Order: sequence, then C-alpha cells, then structure tokens
Amino acid sequence: MSQLSPGTGSGSPGASVGPDFPDLPEATVARLPEYLRALSNLAEAGNDTVSSEALAAAAGVNSAKLRKDLSHLGSYGTRGVGYDVALLVGQIEHVLGLTHRRAVALVGVGNLGHALAGYAGFGSRGFRITALFDADPRLVGKTINGLMVRHIEHLADVAVQEAIAIGVIATPASAAQPVADVLVRAGITSILNFAPCVLSVPDGVDVRKVDLAIELQILSFHEHRKASLTGVALTGVAQNGVAPVEGVGG
Amino acid sequence: MSQLSPGTGSGSPGASVGPDFPDLPEATVARLPEYLRALSNLAEAGNDTVSSEALAAAAGVNSAKLRKDLSHLGSYGTRGVGYDVALLVGQIEHVLGLTHRRAVALVGVGNLGHALAGYAGFGSRGFRITALFDADPRLVGKTINGLMVRHIEHLADVAVQEAIAIGVIATPASAAQPVADVLVRAGITSILNFAPCVLSVPDGVDVRKVDLAIELQILSFHEHRKASLTGVALTGVAQNGVAPVEGVGG
Repeated sequence: MSQLSPGTGSGSPGASVGPDFPDLPEATVARLPEYLRALSNLAEAGNDTVSSEALAAAAGVNSAKLRKDLSHLGSYGTRGVGYDVALLVGQIEHVLGLTHRRAVALVGVGNLGHALAGYAGFGSRGFRITALFDADPRLVGKTINGLMVRHIEHLADVAVQEAIAIGVIATPASAAQPVADVLVRAGITSILNFAPCVLSVPDGVDVRKVDLAIELQILSFHEHRKASLTGVALTGVAQNGVAPVEGVGG
Repeated sequence: MSQLSPGTGSGSPGASVGPDFPDLPEATVARLPEYLRALSNLAEAGNDTVSSEALAAAAGVNSAKLRKDLSHLGSYGTRGVGYDVALLVGQIEHVLGLTHRRAVALVGVGNLGHALAGYAGFGSRGFRITALFDADPRLVGKTINGLMVRHIEHLADVAVQEAIAIGVIATPASAAQPVADVLVRAGITSILNFAPCVLSVPDGVDVRKVDLAIELQILSFHEHRKASLTGVALTGVAQNGVAPVEGVGG
C-alpha cells in the first residue's frame, strides 16, 4: 500500500463491490475529494466547464492522472470543451456517498477535539458533527459549538438515535483503542483516528489516521535531505552510504 | 504519485541526493515515522530487540514491506534476534533529521491553530513550536501556551532569529497562499498546510497538506461502498456501471 494513511479495515476498494460501484484504486479514492474541492471552487466562480489541465492544476495533480482517475467514474469530458463542472461534481459526490450529510460522532474534546468540534470546514463538505463524547467528568455536560458533551457510556444509544456514520477519535493515545472498541460495538464502521497509535479493528471497519507529528517528521526528512544536499555542494563530505549514528549503539 | 498528501515541491526523494542519504521512496519516508513511534513505545516498555513481525504489527504495516523499508537504511536485523531497538531508533531519527529539535512557526491561531499550538504531541517527537503569527488584531498580542501571537509582518525577522525550519499554515483557505508566499520569502522551505487549498510554491519548497474534511470524505466512500454491498445483497439493484446522478445535470 503506497499511501500515507491506509485504511486498516478489510474492504478492498479495488475489488468490484457491487453494480452501483466502479472499481476504484485507493489512490484514486483519495484524490476524488481534491477534485471535488477544486470543482466546487470552479462552480462558485461561475465556470460551467473545465479542461482537464485546468482542473488538474487546481487540484494539484498532473492531468494524465486526473483523466485516468475520472475515467474510472465513466467521465471522459468532451474534446475541446472539457468536463461539465456540475455533472462531475454530482458524479464524485455520488461515488463518495456525499449526496446526504453524514452524521459524525467526536470522542475526546480536549484541545484538539474541541477545535475539531468547531471546525467549520466539515459542514460545508458533507458532514455534520452531531454528538460529542468524553470520559472526563470536567468536560461532560459542557457545551461546545451548541452541542453538549456526553459521557462515552451513552455512545451506543446515541449512535443509533442519531444514525452516526463516522466516529472521530481525538483522545490521547492511551485511550484510543478502548474508544475504538466502543465505537465498533456501537456499530460504527468508519473511524478517523487522530491519536498517535495503531488501532486494531475487526474486518469491515475502515480506519484512517491523521498523525500531526508524522507530517512534521516527513517534512523534517526533506529539510534534512536539502541540508545534506547543500552540505555536499559546500564541503563534499565522506562517501559512505548511510552515516553512522552517534550515541545510540545497541 | 500515489500517496495522499504529496509534497508539491520539486525535490524527488527517490533521487540520490548526497552521500549522507540513502535512496528512499516517498512511501518509505512516510512510513519511517510510524516505525519510529512503534520503536519508541517498545523502548519505553523495556524491549532491546524486536522481530520484524512484531514491529510491523505495532506499526500497522506488513512485515515484508517493513523489512524492505528498513533495508533502504542498511538495517537488516539479525536472524533469530530481530532488530536492535535503540540502534534502529537512532538510524531512523538520523534519516528523518530528528537528532535536534526543529523550530516550527505556526501561522493562524483561530480554532484549529490554537489547538495545534497546544498540541503536546509535537514536543515529544522532535518539534518545538517557537513562534505564533496571525494578522487579526484581536489575536495579535494574546498568549497561547506561553507564546505571544505576533503579527505576520514580523515573520521574516523572527524566522531568522529563531531558525525556523518548518511553517504550519492554519489559516482559512483564502489567506493560505499569501501566507505561503510570506513563509517562502522568509526562507522557509518546508510547509505543513491545514488550509483546504492547493498552494503554489517554488521549486525546492516542500509542502504537505492535511485536509480534515478529505479524510472524512474518503471514509464516506467506504461507508457508501459497504452500504452498496449490503444493498446489492438485499435487493439486487440495476446493473449500470455508474449510477445516474440526480439534480446536477449540466
């Protein structure tokens, strides 16, 4: 698997899963939201059609990849005209299951969870945070963005009542697995995990993770690489393949 | 490019960039932090060595992929013993440039930025947020987590004084490109972008992005796929490749 935050559930999106569904590589699935965001901006700006080159540039991918991705949806555009913006928005929203707003439960309303609960970007893009949970008695009962924080023990009932589709975990790492277990027992089959740990879930449950420090560490690699490159140009240091590591000998 | 949040800068990590650096596929670079996190937990728990299977499980990847990734670093483990935990931690920290803490500037201290400024997970994993910026006079001068929010116009000076390595953008989408331009002019060559937009940066600047709504949209796809699968099993709906999209005709 070649993407950063692989779903760890069993479902292979590359497999044919039903007549309503095209075969989609995971990397294509991950790019469709980027196209959708770019298309929504184009639509807002009054564009009815868009060339594959312009759409690719707006989404930050190359146009050959974009055309291939969209061909999976049966969208080929029209030569000399491009893609119909509204039609393509509809097709992507359909495939992504965004034709109705999905209810999201957020567990853990500490610093990060609190911010996520108030994140305006969810509402405009297909999601509604409908329930907040925590186990900390100092947080339970508080109101954030119009929603009262409930105790995690009520999650199963609320999940059914509110038809929760997705659970977001914003707890410390130590609490994340028990919370995931509660979400799974409540029948939730999609989890977005912000806690810096690997979750173990049964087949049929999809997990995506966002680890903020990992993103910085990847950038750190690039900083290190660029500095190394500059160092080489300036000093021409030794030619060993991997530098020895100081102070960590086994 | 097959990962979710590709760097948009010019640097190809697959290319040989210097004697100090192994050739690393971008996907390997993205997994090294996962191994590092798992190894740190193993070290804390008192483990001196770890098998590739156990480390792979702790990092949530398959063990063949892990062995291949680590072979890029020149680490092959010892048959019957596994990897030396401390040695491998050191090698990965070295490659990721984590042998010293990198200074991070955060721009945009609204809801999400405020939470990021207080995110405890950065400090323990190689980063120090040393400067906060905003353009909003209601936020400039406030203190968050012991740091005073400065006006963005001071960014260039502060970037030099504090040896800022990485800029984090947590502004609304409309402000993100001008902020990226300011970061680039200040000499910062690594940017982590939380704003839902594509940034345009010169060659040599690496950008990674985290779009929270996109993560939910990818999960939504999986929910839709699973529901479709169930629907097919129950009702055997029509056999068209892509379902027609209602209400969005061009």
